[in-house]
Amino acid sequence: MEFSSKLLENAVYEMSQLPGIGKRTALRLVLHLLRQPETQTHHLAEALLTMRDTIKFCEKCHNISDVELCEICANPNRDASLVCVVEDVRDVMAIESTSQYKGLYHVLGGKISPLDGIGPQELNIYSLVEKVKEGEVKEVIFALSSTMEGDTTNFYIYKQVETYNVQTSTIARGISVGDELEYADEVTLGRSILHRIPFENSL
Amino acid sequence: MEFSSKLLENAVYEMSQLPGIGKRTALRLVLHLLRQPETQTHHLAEALLTMRDTIKFCEKCHNISDVELCEICANPNRDASLVCVVEDVRDVMAIESTSQYKGLYHVLGGKISPLDGIGPQELNIYSLVEKVKEGEVKEVIFALSSTMEGDTTNFYIYKQVETYNVQTSTIARGISVGDELEYADEVTLGRSILHRIPFENSL
Repeated sequence: MEFSSKLLENAVYEMSQLPGIGKRTALRLVLHLLRQPETQTHHLAEALLTMRDTIKFCEKCHNISDVELCEICANPNRDASLVCVVEDVRDVMAIESTSQYKGLYHVLGGKISPLDGIGPQELNIYSLVEKVKEGEVKEVIFALSSTMEGDTTNFYIYKQVETYNVQTSTIARGISVGDELEYADEVTLGRSILHRIPFENSL
Repeated sequence: MEFSSKLLENAVYEMSQLPGIGKRTALRLVLHLLRQPETQTHHLAEALLTMRDTIKFCEKCHNISDVELCEICANPNRDASLVCVVEDVRDVMAIESTSQYKGLYHVLGGKISPLDGIGPQELNIYSLVEKVKEGEVKEVIFALSSTMEGDTTNFYIYKQVETYNVQTSTIARGISVGDELEYADEVTLGRSILHRIPFENSL
């Protein structure tokens, strides 16, 4: 791609560093900003800079937060004996939107993935084990995605905490509500049969 | 979507103002920036701000440029009697990448589209007519996309310049090089038959 302007080329280059944004998409986005009033670009740039420079991570659960202790951890009505282990803030948002969970979270910041150079040291695992050691936690719920990396991470954490007096559980895998059985994959369907629940519990 | 941080929410909101970027994609992009070193966000924000605040449009062809007169208009080896009318800078880049065109460009900045509130006044049409009036231009080549808006814009400009001593032409429509005839749409195929060229010219 030959650009008629270095400024344009630079903006497109930086935009295309974002995941899933190629050069063509980046050019489309940048040209859109050029057609809009200058304030839009200013607002975007300021929002990104302010966020990057001043955002904090909750010192207890590592969730993204504007203050030292996030709203969830600071809420006295949440059950501090339940800790749900998730990969990142999006999972916290997804679970919160169900309004079904009243415990706390622990955000790992990723999954163990040797191929990507992510070992246990890169994740917030140590602080989780410390939390369990202190004895306040009664149950650790694993809510990572069920990929090989997710299962590895679950097992690693399980091995770290099993010596302490703590229950461990993992979220249920099964057929999505509203899905047809015939289109489900065998592993999911198999698990949903193995881990069937008493009918009264499902009412 | 419930955000745990106002800063995050604001950054996601501004990002999702870009075309084709929804809230979920915006969140993914913003979280990516949070995982990368701070410098990446700084570079992105600075590149966008510098571009938006200091970029210029060539005073002759309205192409994006770092200086008053763009490289193409300033090049004495380009044929100033040929003017190719295009919609935006991406079309200039596309035509330049073919290395087949040695004339100048005129960037309209859009197409006439009454439904979107874009009339001839919103586009750089007046300066094109003035250019033609001055007499240096011998041929105006229309290279807008062949949509209803593109055809309308072509016809509007044609009506404005036909009284002056200038040739008008439009880029050839036909079967793409490498395409199979059976998969071509009827309009394109029809046009490629109507506007057939002497075989010797295609060698």
